[in-house]
Amino acid sequence: MDADDGGAAQRAEKLLSYISGIANDLKPNETPGMDSSVVKIKHPKFGDLYMISTTDFFYPLVQDPYIQGRIACANVLSDLYAMGVTEVDTMLMILGVSRTMTDIERDVVTTQLIHGFNDLAREAGTNVTGGQTVMNPWPIVGGVAMSVRAESEIIRPENARAGQVLVLTKPLGYAFPLSNAFYVNAGSTQLAVNAYQMRDQPARWSKVESFLTRAMADRAFAVATESMCRLNVNGAKLMHKHGVTSATDVTGFGILGHAQNMATSQKASVDFELDMLPVIKDMLAVNEAFNFQWRLQLGYSSETSGGLLVSIDADRAQAFIDDLMALDGQPAWIVGRVVDGTKQARLSPSVRFVEI
Amino acid sequence: MDADDGGAAQRAEKLLSYISGIANDLKPNETPGMDSSVVKIKHPKFGDLYMISTTDFFYPLVQDPYIQGRIACANVLSDLYAMGVTEVDTMLMILGVSRTMTDIERDVVTTQLIHGFNDLAREAGTNVTGGQTVMNPWPIVGGVAMSVRAESEIIRPENARAGQVLVLTKPLGYAFPLSNAFYVNAGSTQLAVNAYQMRDQPARWSKVESFLTRAMADRAFAVATESMCRLNVNGAKLMHKHGVTSATDVTGFGILGHAQNMATSQKASVDFELDMLPVIKDMLAVNEAFNFQWRLQLGYSSETSGGLLVSIDADRAQAFIDDLMALDGQPAWIVGRVVDGTKQARLSPSVRFVEI
Repeated sequence: MDADDGGAAQRAEKLLSYISGIANDLKPNETPGMDSSVVKIKHPKFGDLYMISTTDFFYPLVQDPYIQGRIACANVLSDLYAMGVTEVDTMLMILGVSRTMTDIERDVVTTQLIHGFNDLAREAGTNVTGGQTVMNPWPIVGGVAMSVRAESEIIRPENARAGQVLVLTKPLGYAFPLSNAFYVNAGSTQLAVNAYQMRDQPARWSKVESFLTRAMADRAFAVATESMCRLNVNGAKLMHKHGVTSATDVTGFGILGHAQNMATSQKASVDFELDMLPVIKDMLAVNEAFNFQWRLQLGYSSETSGGLLVSIDADRAQAFIDDLMALDGQPAWIVGRVVDGTKQARLSPSVRFVEI
Repeated sequence: MDADDGGAAQRAEKLLSYISGIANDLKPNETPGMDSSVVKIKHPKFGDLYMISTTDFFYPLVQDPYIQGRIACANVLSDLYAMGVTEVDTMLMILGVSRTMTDIERDVVTTQLIHGFNDLAREAGTNVTGGQTVMNPWPIVGGVAMSVRAESEIIRPENARAGQVLVLTKPLGYAFPLSNAFYVNAGSTQLAVNAYQMRDQPARWSKVESFLTRAMADRAFAVATESMCRLNVNGAKLMHKHGVTSATDVTGFGILGHAQNMATSQKASVDFELDMLPVIKDMLAVNEAFNFQWRLQLGYSSETSGGLLVSIDADRAQAFIDDLMALDGQPAWIVGRVVDGTKQARLSPSVRFVEI
């Protein structure tokens, strides 16, 4: 499956194309193409409320099903947080139970997936109140998140201004949600997770052992896991406090793919230029050792439950970063600038990659 | 796969058990165990509104992907209609794209699935505003439906009274959503659909050809398809008009399984006794020819996008049925009674099956 791994972003684009272009009756203020669906609720008594909702699910990336459940929950909620939604009314869980497991494996894995998902939902102040479970060749985990908010409580990804900067709240280089390869060949196509799992795969490990120790792979995996399990809720709260004008979360399309999506939805004719990308230590070298198959160096490495990418006034960015450090204990970085342009996103010719 | 087909309801119970029992912070008025999740929205300005939501997805049952898309949409929406919700704010679509198809097959099938789903969503007065698509060994189709309603606009399945009757709005014997067999062996494990597809499977057809003609199989399939594609929205509207006190929709657990679920959620100590079950013509015989593997005769044959089962005052039932005939052009039936009891559902010892 390796030959196909580099095509994840392209596959993601293709998959997305299936649901684009369908006819619907959306009003102009019900913008499609955001991280979440935002629809004015129809109830006649309450005309100023919006339903913000999202669904996301994928195949397990890590071996610990409890951790995987937490990652899946953080990943679903992230689409709401990217819209500035800080309160989630409810969640539903989506589960595919693997038919190729033994009964005991299935019970343990499924129970732990659910507990991980549910525990993080409760930490996010919400509840799992329903869902659907099917038998499937591959295990599936994900869900739905919903919130009813007033317009003033939503930050639509459309008001970036030239002169602002772009801040990213988690490092890059750890996840790859849209590939199926990991389950089929019991390897993973994400970077840090892959590097970790390679330790037990001699053929793959031989490509990286000249520069990567097991301890280094363990460390990258730990950073990735912490990052994927971390809720973007504090980032969402700080978006309001510090006047963020547009945001997205970095997932399957890679940072540049999501920056491009956000650029397209802007009202002003601006470009997003990325000039400093924080990546998990050693992952650039792993990417290179595998012939750049994850395209991390181009900004297209898929992530799962990645960070928020926000446009913010230059003089408020540091306060946003400092507050997030105080709340989450984790760094964020100024990664680029909003400039006059034509709604494009790009890596700066002088882009630097900084290892984290 | 046939040996396993009879176990669908048991498998459904097992799958459901995975998500039961997880801890959450629900208030007493946020009842779990209904066809949809009902959660009071948190927004402080609007304290009397509820988020009603559901997700459902499964594997294709019929060969025409456009029809399959319509069935999937009707099936998702049915969970809201069973709660008396008549307006749906928005839908998300859930799609698994088969990796075993050729590129052309995949494009055609996926596009038609989406168009069918979306067309019926629009006929239901709502829109598909997002979703998630993954590659999967088997194709998957389904979605999420959401509505914000006041308490008075919801009918919770809890106020059945002894002396009321039970009305069912679609016949039984056509669907089987939780089995995976149909895709693996290109056969189907539902009844009418199965009977239709058997026409091209000599080994299976030989079991029924003594009593079933191809025209009879075609006719059963047509009835099943019309039924599965039909929205339960008019039934939901008439639930309010005619004072229905409790309702559910008949899907994977079969009519008796869903009647039992509804009985359990009642406030009063009542039983539901089913004494006349309408089934699609010839399907009882097909069930028998296959050693009763669908358990239709026991009330446990799984359905997809089945009818509403409602408790209603005896003197209002005929008006409900007549109004539904006027709106949908299809019959409904008094199938049982609410009696004093212990929150159990059962087939009457004198239960009759009437072919439709």
